Amino acid sequence: MPTAVKSVLPVVLLGCGGVGRHLLHHIVSCRPLHAKQGVAIQVVGVGDSSSLLVADDVHSGHCQLFKNPEASGKVIEAATTLGRSTVVFVTLNLDILLTACVTHLLLGLVLVDCSATYDTVGLLKAAVDHGCCIALANKKPLTGAYEDFEKLVSNFRRIRFESTVGAGLPVIASVTRIIASGDPISRIVGSLSGTLGYVMSELEDGKKFSEVVKTAKSLGYTEPDPCDDLGGMDVARKALILARLLGQRISMEDINVESLYPSELGPDAMSTKDFLESGVAQLDRSMEERVKAASLKGNVLRYVCEIGSTGCQIGIRELPKDSALGRLRGSDNVVEIYSRCYESSPLVIQGAGAGNDTTAAGVLADILDLQDLFQKKA
Amino acid sequence: MPTAVKSVLPVVLLGCGGVGRHLLHHIVSCRPLHAKQGVAIQVVGVGDSSSLLVADDVHSGHCQLFKNPEASGKVIEAATTLGRSTVVFVTLNLDILLTACVTHLLLGLVLVDCSATYDTVGLLKAAVDHGCCIALANKKPLTGAYEDFEKLVSNFRRIRFESTVGAGLPVIASVTRIIASGDPISRIVGSLSGTLGYVMSELEDGKKFSEVVKTAKSLGYTEPDPCDDLGGMDVARKALILARLLGQRISMEDINVESLYPSELGPDAMSTKDFLESGVAQLDRSMEERVKAASLKGNVLRYVCEIGSTGCQIGIRELPKDSALGRLRGSDNVVEIYSRCYESSPLVIQGAGAGNDTTAAGVLADILDLQDLFQKKA
Ligand SMILES: NC(=O)c1ccc[n+]([C@@H]2O[C@H](COP(=O)([O-])OP(=O)(O)OC[C@H]3O[C@@H](n4cnc5c(N)ncnc54)[C@H](OP(=O)(O)O)[C@@H]3O)[C@@H](O)[C@H]2O)c1
Ligand SMILES: NC(=O)c1ccc[n+]([C@@H]2O[C@H](COP(=O)([O-])OP(=O)(O)OC[C@H]3O[C@@H](n4cnc5c(N)ncnc54)[C@H](OP(=O)(O)O)[C@@H]3O)[C@@H](O)[C@H]2O)c1
Repeated sequence: MPTAVKSVLPVVLLGCGGVGRHLLHHIVSCRPLHAKQGVAIQVVGVGDSSSLLVADDVHSGHCQLFKNPEASGKVIEAATTLGRSTVVFVTLNLDILLTACVTHLLLGLVLVDCSATYDTVGLLKAAVDHGCCIALANKKPLTGAYEDFEKLVSNFRRIRFESTVGAGLPVIASVTRIIASGDPISRIVGSLSGTLGYVMSELEDGKKFSEVVKTAKSLGYTEPDPCDDLGGMDVARKALILARLLGQRISMEDINVESLYPSELGPDAMSTKDFLESGVAQLDRSMEERVKAASLKGNVLRYVCEIGSTGCQIGIRELPKDSALGRLRGSDNVVEIYSRCYESSPLVIQGAGAGNDTTAAGVLADILDLQDLFQKKA
Repeated sequence: MPTAVKSVLPVVLLGCGGVGRHLLHHIVSCRPLHAKQGVAIQVVGVGDSSSLLVADDVHSGHCQLFKNPEASGKVIEAATTLGRSTVVFVTLNLDILLTACVTHLLLGLVLVDCSATYDTVGLLKAAVDHGCCIALANKKPLTGAYEDFEKLVSNFRRIRFESTVGAGLPVIASVTRIIASGDPISRIVGSLSGTLGYVMSELEDGKKFSEVVKTAKSLGYTEPDPCDDLGGMDVARKALILARLLGQRISMEDINVESLYPSELGPDAMSTKDFLESGVAQLDRSMEERVKAASLKGNVLRYVCEIGSTGCQIGIRELPKDSALGRLRGSDNVVEIYSRCYESSPLVIQGAGAGNDTTAAGVLADILDLQDLFQKKA
């Protein structure tokens, strides 16, 4: 006997790139599992940077989407994943979206941000104003102006953002649990970039910095421009989210970020091609010396973020070879959380911290975690 | 400006031993923090094995408890922690409790089990029947008959039991998230006893088994009878909870548990005193040989539980020195979770897995996690 549906979660998805499309696939393939648990996720809208498709009749549970010639091919393809070949209407207009979604959906809405842009922040804030829920893989809306962060988390039970830090790893959920139970967190130390984790452990094995960077790029571990990873800004965004979660009213400008390349070799000074062909090799010698100096003391180098009571530091640190961070190999992420309960020996969470599958699974778990707010009235 | 209270959670606590009393202290000391978040936890009843005190008027939010001469001293002391010197009525009668709690509490109830007995299972099942929520630190109700487990988790959004495995470590929450996101878990391997973790890492350092056991007892790491730890039953209960969570319809009888002492030296054959004075030393030689044999292969011994698709095994295993489990030192717990997303490299969670403070913090986080079910109607 099938379980009666207890919660229906209408979802609008912003961004159908690698993560967004995986999320749609997970939602579709989990339908039987979720049905057994009495939950139904109904994707009522999908959008990218040019189109946003929203269904008109979601109450029936069988919303039909009608094709619109203005919709981008990617969005139509994504909507098709859901078993619907056609789409209702296309809008990038906030008011129309919210009228369509909120006024018509008495049940509320989960606005899911799997884009990679700051541009969604207005829509997200409007959703919060309307009492909607939001779930983010996108770090940018949480790492802009402090006021935006404050607004987005103002109803903390209605926002989830697990995948912004360490993809599917339960970092945000654990930090939130610990804080809620009155156990004050004094420090978080982490290696939060798979790319830089890989680079640092290859350096430890005696490889040249320039070779390691080129291999990482050829393996697809880096962004198209490796400087995007080597500059540390992605790690800084994750650290800022953690610091703000701990109650620090800080912004990107307040964070010390050590870049692995000087500005003379950066994207403003040369092309990615020149950086890879000649620029990065200029850094081999100094990096080798740092690795050796650390090794003489029994230490290894790791690119870490440290969030303490005095703020947030990001860069290369010398760490004991046998610490949780020092033992890290390859592209795994690791986070150490220190609190009253985890004082001498931290709570450690480790595992794959990137990948479309894992990240999308984290977003899906976040959406499901909101289900009690979408319970059908008896 | 204080935040308006959005959720009120009425709590009845069973068990005011080490964990239960810490929980009451945490609830009281977190009141200002929770008030800021718009949540209020109201303890409306406290009980031990002989008394259960329940407040009569919880709607006012200032329920007064009137002293009753039948109430046990410990329960009155616990109730006093809450800032109330007096207690309403004492009952161990299920029907009276449920009438008092459920009929009068239109908001529902969280029944929290911090006892260490099977005897609460009837009350817990009755609570489930009445649509109440339950939160457990006590493993026993989840590790009895499979039907009891099934009943208790039948409304999975209304039960939390994080602290039954690894105390405050986010093990159950992570396993639940991973399963819900459609990422099937293939294997869980863990070191889930702080006591046995300590024993195994001391053996690795070349100490004698009998000395290590006596030191562990004198440091308060073991139960009053160390055989309770060395027999592995507590680990088996944790493993059973994890296996059942993965969907295995098994019971304690189906689990292979390796005891660190043979039955000739067990509690049925000799007293704890005799075991410590002469019994345990008889095991030194064979243990030393096992440690050496492992070490020759670069391995170490760990007392682990393994939950795979073929069931559940518990006992000493030889593991590579540089695996997450092999590196473990002292009394930390560690759990490795393997799934599609965490396939070659597992999701690892490590940290203190016992202690009244940590365990109670885990229970408190569980209670708060139920708050969306206790939202005030607008
Ligand atoms: N992949 C991972 O391992 C991982 C891990 C953790 C977190 N994340 C985060 O997850 C997010 C998505 O990652 P991804 O790898 O899927 O990125 P991606 O492949 O670059 O996809 C980004 C998507 O966002 C869309 N988009 C751009 N502007 C938009 C707007 N204003 N409104 C709605 N949609 C817009 C893009 O559409 P167009 O094609 O029209 O530009 C595209 O569909 C990123 O924020 C990333 O940092 C990713
Ligand atoms: N401490 C830890 O590190 C830890 C970690 C994880 C999980 N846990 C679990 O947490 C639970 C509590 O541990 P603890 O160390 O606090 O145990 P404890 O100090 O032995 O306290 C047990 C409490 O339960 C009460 N009790 C016994 N039978 C009862 C009944 N039928 N109804 C209501 N209460 C009853 C006892 O009352 P009387 O005094 O009247 O018998 C006592 O107040 C245990 O199940 C334990 O396995 C503990």
